[in-house]
Amino acid sequence: MNALTALTNHQIRLASRPVGLPTRDNWKFTTEPVTEPGPGGVLVKTLYLSLDPAMRGWMNEGKSYIAPVEIDAVMRAGGVGRVVASQNPAFAVGDHVSGGLDVQEYCLIPEAQLKRSGLFKIDPSLGLTTWLNVLGMPGMTGYFGLLDVGQPKAGETVVVSGAAGAVGQTVGQIAKRKGCRVVGIAGGQAKCDWVVNELGFDACIDYKGGDVKAGLKAHCPNGIDVYFDNVGGEILDAVLTRITRGARIIICGAISQYNNTTPVKGPANYLSLLMNRARMEGIVVFDYADRYPQAIAEMAGYLKDGTLKSREDVVQGLENFPEALLKLFNGENFGKLALQVASE
Amino acid sequence: MNALTALTNHQIRLASRPVGLPTRDNWKFTTEPVTEPGPGGVLVKTLYLSLDPAMRGWMNEGKSYIAPVEIDAVMRAGGVGRVVASQNPAFAVGDHVSGGLDVQEYCLIPEAQLKRSGLFKIDPSLGLTTWLNVLGMPGMTGYFGLLDVGQPKAGETVVVSGAAGAVGQTVGQIAKRKGCRVVGIAGGQAKCDWVVNELGFDACIDYKGGDVKAGLKAHCPNGIDVYFDNVGGEILDAVLTRITRGARIIICGAISQYNNTTPVKGPANYLSLLMNRARMEGIVVFDYADRYPQAIAEMAGYLKDGTLKSREDVVQGLENFPEALLKLFNGENFGKLALQVASE
Repeated sequence: MNALTALTNHQIRLASRPVGLPTRDNWKFTTEPVTEPGPGGVLVKTLYLSLDPAMRGWMNEGKSYIAPVEIDAVMRAGGVGRVVASQNPAFAVGDHVSGGLDVQEYCLIPEAQLKRSGLFKIDPSLGLTTWLNVLGMPGMTGYFGLLDVGQPKAGETVVVSGAAGAVGQTVGQIAKRKGCRVVGIAGGQAKCDWVVNELGFDACIDYKGGDVKAGLKAHCPNGIDVYFDNVGGEILDAVLTRITRGARIIICGAISQYNNTTPVKGPANYLSLLMNRARMEGIVVFDYADRYPQAIAEMAGYLKDGTLKSREDVVQGLENFPEALLKLFNGENFGKLALQVASE
Repeated sequence: MNALTALTNHQIRLASRPVGLPTRDNWKFTTEPVTEPGPGGVLVKTLYLSLDPAMRGWMNEGKSYIAPVEIDAVMRAGGVGRVVASQNPAFAVGDHVSGGLDVQEYCLIPEAQLKRSGLFKIDPSLGLTTWLNVLGMPGMTGYFGLLDVGQPKAGETVVVSGAAGAVGQTVGQIAKRKGCRVVGIAGGQAKCDWVVNELGFDACIDYKGGDVKAGLKAHCPNGIDVYFDNVGGEILDAVLTRITRGARIIICGAISQYNNTTPVKGPANYLSLLMNRARMEGIVVFDYADRYPQAIAEMAGYLKDGTLKSREDVVQGLENFPEALLKLFNGENFGKLALQVASE
């Protein structure tokens, strides 16, 4: 065990709360010695971290669905890693695990925090980063948001923004399995081609290169029954003009608004909800935690038989976290964005 | 029958589509001879007309939940009247009726349009204007919007804007019957006092005289579980900051936005729906038409035993329609606004 304690844990901490897009000044790079777990505890070596739009919200002060990251705290992040020391019978050295590891090379999880960290063993044969994507929080968000909140029926039209992103790829593929017409909205022709050709979406609208309203009109001739919204802003307003009677809009995120220095742009067309007796409803994935195992088992089956795909965009190196995170906000990531911190 | 055909029918027609608040120039005053009903038809003398915020929307061009009023058409309005000629066995001369009568002194309803007009016999002993209020479309809107869309449970906090208006008074009184804490929002102390002292609301916030956010904080210590929105705008945004997890917001109207010459102000705080796993859902009363009789019977019972109150604000004279309508938009009406066109 002495080999472990000779190691250094590089960490990235929140130095200050950003105004607009986070800059390098908002982060602090620290080092700590790696320490052994106490009774019941586990030490995990981080392999991949999940970079998520929600992180931007965690950097803000104030009430949200989860407490903000405190100033000087290690930045919160989910990840996958390998157990390098364990005093807990549920985890053996060498096990691959997923859970809250935070933006650091090693995560010491005392027994009392194990439940909160959500740490669980994963099957590495399905791909490590897959556990941050369709088998991870984004996949669970897409799965339960679409099915429980959106309640799509065969033959209905489902539109999803951020279609090539982590949540969007799950939403679209699950909606196709349910017999829906699926139209994505993504940034750039390459992403649009991928969701249509590889994931089997019926169409995809390039919001960077085209007119979203015209695209929705062309590709949703019977209107939009379910809209899974990851972006907010003008795209949400465009969708609201084409929803059907009784439509369901799942509010999962609003990445277009997270770095605003002006107030959030509320949906000016929200009265379409009235005209169409439609609803707009928020989802927070944690509410479905007791059903994750069942959803993971189902999606793992689809992955194994090749009918579900999972694409990740992996950036190398813990030190590149600040810039990597920004890829989410300018839409540069192609697939679920992950940061590789170590290779086994 | 010759006596009837000697009569003149004064009408108010839409002359042009308003920009912002309607002005007298948007209306045209016409006269027509009164004509006898054909086989199966009915002629109704208008006694009271219902003046509703929704009328402003009907004056606009473009798709809504109901077709716009065409230029030169008699302005659409619901009303109560008395049958003065009938060739239909379902209606006898002297019957009091309610339905689509439009802004005119006499309404000739051919058999083919009877269903569309929604004409039905009413019990005048409950009060004629009551049939435009808690027993009419506003009452039905409040009843089904609150119960079916809002699904309030005993002990929950229900907030309703436009609390002293037609829909608001029904919503608040029904919510009290369901065992909820009920907080109104209304314009002016007199209205606030009335909903608290006469209708039994737990509290009422005067949006003209006070700080709505502070009022909601003071009067909704456990947050807001159900919000019945008649107004939109800043009040909707204030409510969104205080909703509970799983809250339901019923979008019934947005009177603060109907006369905008700038785009509708969307709810900037709509991401509170996400944080709180809450939903915002539109209601259009017509969807509940097959259940009106049951709701009317229930509410008529409450009116008879004195546990439900209905307050109308009656303006006299068809010719005063243009100005009377404006009372809705500056909040001058105290109770459901109606226009008396004739007295029996």
